[in-house]
Parts: sequence; structure tokens; C-alpha cells
Amino acid sequence: MPERELPHPSTEEFVLTDVLFALSDPNRLTIVRQLAEGPMETASCQTLGGEMPKSTRSHYLKTLREAGIIRNVAHGRERMVSLRREDLDHRFPGLLTSVLEA
Amino acid sequence: MPERELPHPSTEEFVLTDVLFALSDPNRLTIVRQLAEGPMETASCQTLGGEMPKSTRSHYLKTLREAGIIRNVAHGRERMVSLRREDLDHRFPGLLTSVLEA
Repeated sequence: MPERELPHPSTEEFVLTDVLFALSDPNRLTIVRQLAEGPMETASCQTLGGEMPKSTRSHYLKTLREAGIIRNVAHGRERMVSLRREDLDHRFPGLLTSVLEA
Repeated sequence: MPERELPHPSTEEFVLTDVLFALSDPNRLTIVRQLAEGPMETASCQTLGGEMPKSTRSHYLKTLREAGIIRNVAHGRERMVSLRREDLDHRFPGLLTSVLEA
């Protein structure tokens, strides 16, 4: 059975430059903008081109998760991703809002 | 005689992900934090480690300039760099402030 629980950094472990880097890719940023609308199944995440290989999506989501931008949890037989908006706002006030509104 | 005037993007040409990428490196971010205090000669810019080869510094400054974060102009026999704070605030309100205060 594959591992279901993925590691997530605590807010104290967030690193500003890692967060900025994770947001600096147009495809990853597109995923973040979708998640700003609400949580979704990983399979529903889209990038600029629309379709993408599952391995590519997994890599984008891993970078976002490891930076602390999203949470990725098992949900039944699927996986759900959500934006860690409160955590980011707490640690880096105004950053995510300015990026989403840009 | 080497070229003295370097190209700088107009605010309309700024690309959010390029700005985020330029800020996502600890050494480049250190330079930006210094420039938040005021303009300085390129030779005075320092990074985390303090000293750095001139070629390394030139590369950091190029990435920051091309993203629109700094202006790099000839000043007598030296070159001066400054933060394009108003331009960034105009185009991406709140972004630079949130990064500098993080």
C-alpha cells in the first residue's frame, strides 16, 4: 500500500525564498489561483495548457506542498489539495494576496 | 568602450513570475534588502557570504534588472543600482512591501 500521508512544513518552517520560488512558475501559479477558489481533487488541477501528464502535476504539487503553499491530503480513494492561506497570511502577511491580485 | 546603457523593462513589461523568481534567491533577496535602504554602487552590493566574485554579482544584478526590480545606470566611472520601488508598487501593489517585511 502506498504511503497516504505526505509531510507538510509547519508555519515556523516556511522559508520566504522557497515560497517565492514555488510561486515563480506560471504553471504552479495557475494551480494556486485555482485553489484560491477552494479545495479540489488533485486530478482536477489544471495548468496553463489545460491537460498535463500526472507525473508533471505531481511534481508541481510537491514543490507547492514542500514550500507550505498547499496541503495535500488523502480523501477516500482520492487526494484533495487546498491552499494554506491562513498559514501563509500569518507568516508572510500580504504576500499571497498581492500575488493573487497581481 | 563598453556599452554604458543597459536595457530596463517598462512597468507594462513586468512579468509577475519573473519578479517572484528574481526575489526567490537568498543572495538576490539580500541585495534587494540593501537597496531598500537606498541606491548604492554596484561594487558595494553584498550577499549573504559578504564577498563575492564580480561575475557572480553581475549575474545577480542582471536577473534583478531584467525582472524590473532594480535600475542599473552609469554614474561617472561607476555604476549605481537602485530599487524600482514605485514601479513595482504601481504594478504589483503590496508585493515588495510584504517581501521586505517578511
